[in-house]
Amino acid sequence: VGRLARFEDDADALIATAEAAVDAARAAIRPYFRATGLSAETKSDDSPVTVADRAAERAMRAVLAARFPDYGLIGEEDGTERGDASRRWVIDPIDGTRSFLTGRFNFGTLLALLDEDRPVLGVIDQPITGERWIGAAGRPTIFRGPFGGTAGCRRCPDLALAELSCTSPQMFTPSERVRWERLAGSVRRSSFGGDCYAYGLLALGQIDVIAEADLNLWDWAALFSVIEGAGGRMTDWSGAALQPSPGITPVLAVGDPALLDAALQRLAA
Amino acid sequence: VGRLARFEDDADALIATAEAAVDAARAAIRPYFRATGLSAETKSDDSPVTVADRAAERAMRAVLAARFPDYGLIGEEDGTERGDASRRWVIDPIDGTRSFLTGRFNFGTLLALLDEDRPVLGVIDQPITGERWIGAAGRPTIFRGPFGGTAGCRRCPDLALAELSCTSPQMFTPSERVRWERLAGSVRRSSFGGDCYAYGLLALGQIDVIAEADLNLWDWAALFSVIEGAGGRMTDWSGAALQPSPGITPVLAVGDPALLDAALQRLAA
Repeated sequence: VGRLARFEDDADALIATAEAAVDAARAAIRPYFRATGLSAETKSDDSPVTVADRAAERAMRAVLAARFPDYGLIGEEDGTERGDASRRWVIDPIDGTRSFLTGRFNFGTLLALLDEDRPVLGVIDQPITGERWIGAAGRPTIFRGPFGGTAGCRRCPDLALAELSCTSPQMFTPSERVRWERLAGSVRRSSFGGDCYAYGLLALGQIDVIAEADLNLWDWAALFSVIEGAGGRMTDWSGAALQPSPGITPVLAVGDPALLDAALQRLAA
Repeated sequence: VGRLARFEDDADALIATAEAAVDAARAAIRPYFRATGLSAETKSDDSPVTVADRAAERAMRAVLAARFPDYGLIGEEDGTERGDASRRWVIDPIDGTRSFLTGRFNFGTLLALLDEDRPVLGVIDQPITGERWIGAAGRPTIFRGPFGGTAGCRRCPDLALAELSCTSPQMFTPSERVRWERLAGSVRRSSFGGDCYAYGLLALGQIDVIAEADLNLWDWAALFSVIEGAGGRMTDWSGAALQPSPGITPVLAVGDPALLDAALQRLAA
């Protein structure tokens, strides 16, 4: 009883609202995909932001505030409202802006719900391909899309057989890089590019391990529910639970929980 | 007159044949995308190959041999037939097998035609999204697909404003890596992942520079015609024309020819 029971009472309405919000983000983003002359500003953390990011976040905030006016809102672009609410939506309108800016499909709109400090709902939406992942506490992750794939992480108990993925080797500090290379040297294959989309592929049993640095709350909160609901695990690089506190954190995601200890060992400082 | 005039005489029939061949590859590949239990063998060059690669190359060879029985065939998986023919098809059934194996869309089927030693026709086909690029000597590149994008490289005369892309930092030797990092340090942004698909995005004006090592004839021949027909340039890292000889080569592609000298300078040994 308590938190999860309460979430379950509202879960269908919350999921419907989250879907309506990412539908609005889709409509805001699609006109800008591969558009001529779309340019990006560079933010203080060196990440790019476009007019599409800002339009999508505004559209999502409008849907969420209309349906749940008492809930808090934490967004990558427009900051926090009602930050002391017990339930807070967490918004990343375009996770993977570099992919978006180069016309790739490896980006997505992320929306999570925190119940106190625990993520209880997460949506990954790919606005161009129409693929969508929905993870909700206590329920199996749902995936819908026109190009195949079935929700559920795959078994892969041996790191030597694992597919590793990482958005960019440029995301690591030198010492993180050494630890990541130790992990990369222990797996079957590595591939690059992905942002949130790679976590979606892990939840489809296509990738086994993702280790990244540099993630903010709005980058990982939605992924957490999608991955847990698909049977995987997501922690920091020491194996501790991710905390919804300000600042960036390194994250490790594994599709098969049996991989967790071996991956953490390679990532140990 | 001569080579190009002769190619132009047959161009429509050759393009139709190339499209029929990649249609056959699509049909062979699609059932395996995100399929459960698809595994890969590792070849002598450490690259993965799947049953989908082999099925797609067989399907393409059958179409090409039926329509142009005198032409040579050079394929990544099944080797060379009639290697002394003056016209030779060059086949890479799945370029970007790592992307294919992880359920990403950043892979493609490549088909080129060499007239003597010059690539005169190139097709990049994405079998899952249904996107297709067709480059033919003396004609503007054609792009078709359901998700937007227009064929044609964009202007970007300043390296400091350029989007750089690279499939994986693991593709470089240590000395190539130093040269690549020098280029990466001069551009606006870098992104990873892509294989042939990134060259397609360069031909849509979404990416400005790609510098990669490790490309075989079947990796670059189709890209050459697509990029030249979109207004870009493709050379080796010394600025020399790519040669259809055995072995691997580093390649540089730029969307705006005005970027070529500056990029070559950064890549100089």
